[in-house]
Amino acid sequence: MQALRSSQGSLLGRPRPCTSRLVSHQVARRSSIVCSAAAPMKKVEAEQDVPGMSKFLDTLKYDKNGLVAVIVQHIDTGEVMMQAYADRAAISETLQTGLATFYSRSRNGRWCKGETSGHFINVHRLFADCDRDSLIYLSDPIGPACHTGARTCWFSEASLDAGHHVHTEGEHTHSDHVPMTTLLALERTIQQRRDALAQPTEGKPSWTARLLSNPELLCKKVREEAGELCQTLEAGEGGERAASEMADLLYHSMVLLNLQGVKMEEVMRVLRKRFGTSGVEEKAARPPKQSS
Amino acid sequence: MQALRSSQGSLLGRPRPCTSRLVSHQVARRSSIVCSAAAPMKKVEAEQDVPGMSKFLDTLKYDKNGLVAVIVQHIDTGEVMMQAYADRAAISETLQTGLATFYSRSRNGRWCKGETSGHFINVHRLFADCDRDSLIYLSDPIGPACHTGARTCWFSEASLDAGHHVHTEGEHTHSDHVPMTTLLALERTIQQRRDALAQPTEGKPSWTARLLSNPELLCKKVREEAGELCQTLEAGEGGERAASEMADLLYHSMVLLNLQGVKMEEVMRVLRKRFGTSGVEEKAARPPKQSS
Repeated sequence: MQALRSSQGSLLGRPRPCTSRLVSHQVARRSSIVCSAAAPMKKVEAEQDVPGMSKFLDTLKYDKNGLVAVIVQHIDTGEVMMQAYADRAAISETLQTGLATFYSRSRNGRWCKGETSGHFINVHRLFADCDRDSLIYLSDPIGPACHTGARTCWFSEASLDAGHHVHTEGEHTHSDHVPMTTLLALERTIQQRRDALAQPTEGKPSWTARLLSNPELLCKKVREEAGELCQTLEAGEGGERAASEMADLLYHSMVLLNLQGVKMEEVMRVLRKRFGTSGVEEKAARPPKQSS
Repeated sequence: MQALRSSQGSLLGRPRPCTSRLVSHQVARRSSIVCSAAAPMKKVEAEQDVPGMSKFLDTLKYDKNGLVAVIVQHIDTGEVMMQAYADRAAISETLQTGLATFYSRSRNGRWCKGETSGHFINVHRLFADCDRDSLIYLSDPIGPACHTGARTCWFSEASLDAGHHVHTEGEHTHSDHVPMTTLLALERTIQQRRDALAQPTEGKPSWTARLLSNPELLCKKVREEAGELCQTLEAGEGGERAASEMADLLYHSMVLLNLQGVKMEEVMRVLRKRFGTSGVEEKAARPPKQSS
């Protein structure tokens, strides 16, 4: 059941000759080479040659063009990266190769994302919805998912202001108007405070700015907040208080990570690799280090 | 620009009579009442009566049935909750009411999610993709999003095993075969260890099981890991080490939260409410509490 979860995110294999029945597993970023001798390949079998494949594909409800909708979601950050359509053959190919493959309605043909840009999408898990007409490819993309070069395809936002007027913002690919979950939005807010440090400011600096400018204060706060989180358990202060203290600890820790140029995505990748191989437990069970 | 972000998640307003031009903002869970006197209402204007609305709706690329795809994503957890389609009127209604509204292809009509089940979806932000034919409603759903009663519509997984055989799993709505980001998957793993504590075990218990069984050890580890994270900054140990220590701190903290029955979703909600109103900074800037 683990086959779609490519080990440690790398898709290694023996190079094979390039034919239409083979798919290149290009792991290098920004390469436009699809079928180079250096690119490892995986053979794609016909649907009927893979036991269970037809049975699964038969359960899906294709539209009159033979397509289902596909959502590509980032396994670590939860970002929705792109949305496209797939036919039976594209789904079969995705399952076999672990590379996100679609049916292009504009080009009328099967399309392995990345085959021209090098920005392949490693699919770790594949899900079907209740109506069997929409799939999720839970993925670890190589480079930007959008053909414009943007990280995700959604970078334009519409909103209604207090004056009951609709605004559309973020027409550019490097827009901040992308769907961000709470964690990613907090990370961006911290980065905005960091960027603002370079600007002359008036009035009292924000708390985040103070933390960013004072590593000693920041470390003191991180240790304090960890203590307060522990105290919620030790003193039985209740779940609401625990959630609040965890929020404090997470926020202060993320300020500390920002100072070191580390993104939560990297932290999530570490966790995925650890607990994907029971590594969290392995690592955590090692004898304690000498700590202050 | 804040209008779509309903303040603190509540959709309060003055009750109005129930007509086809009004939408009920039902916030109570599991109620099937749509237009009760107690349910606050918001007026929905015609598209042309909302400045900027037609201009935005004109930028979208509708299919020959006049529809675009819509993905509903959970603002706190990043979960993809459901996927449906919307016409111009449904998008206009969503922008104005802040409630996820679609066009039902099976019923050939506009459909405000929750109008029969009570499981409305509060839409905080609305995004369009690069091709202008797919939207994301970044949302805070009330109750399950799926018509089956499942939390999300994706609860069935297809995977290829080492023997090159496709398996389909999770036919039931309470399946564990749902797309989970790394953070949610870790949370589930911890819960599985917790559940297993009630079972007789053979051999050495897992590290997570040991932590769950020994709050004193757990709190000691949380404090230690916070110290080690700080040390990466204090001693300039580098970003890779910082990511690794943050992973440790996050994992141990999540075990501590599990013991108190607290989910990361709740922590994210606290953070969203705080930093959505600059509350993170307000809270954090208060004079320090007496801590141990």
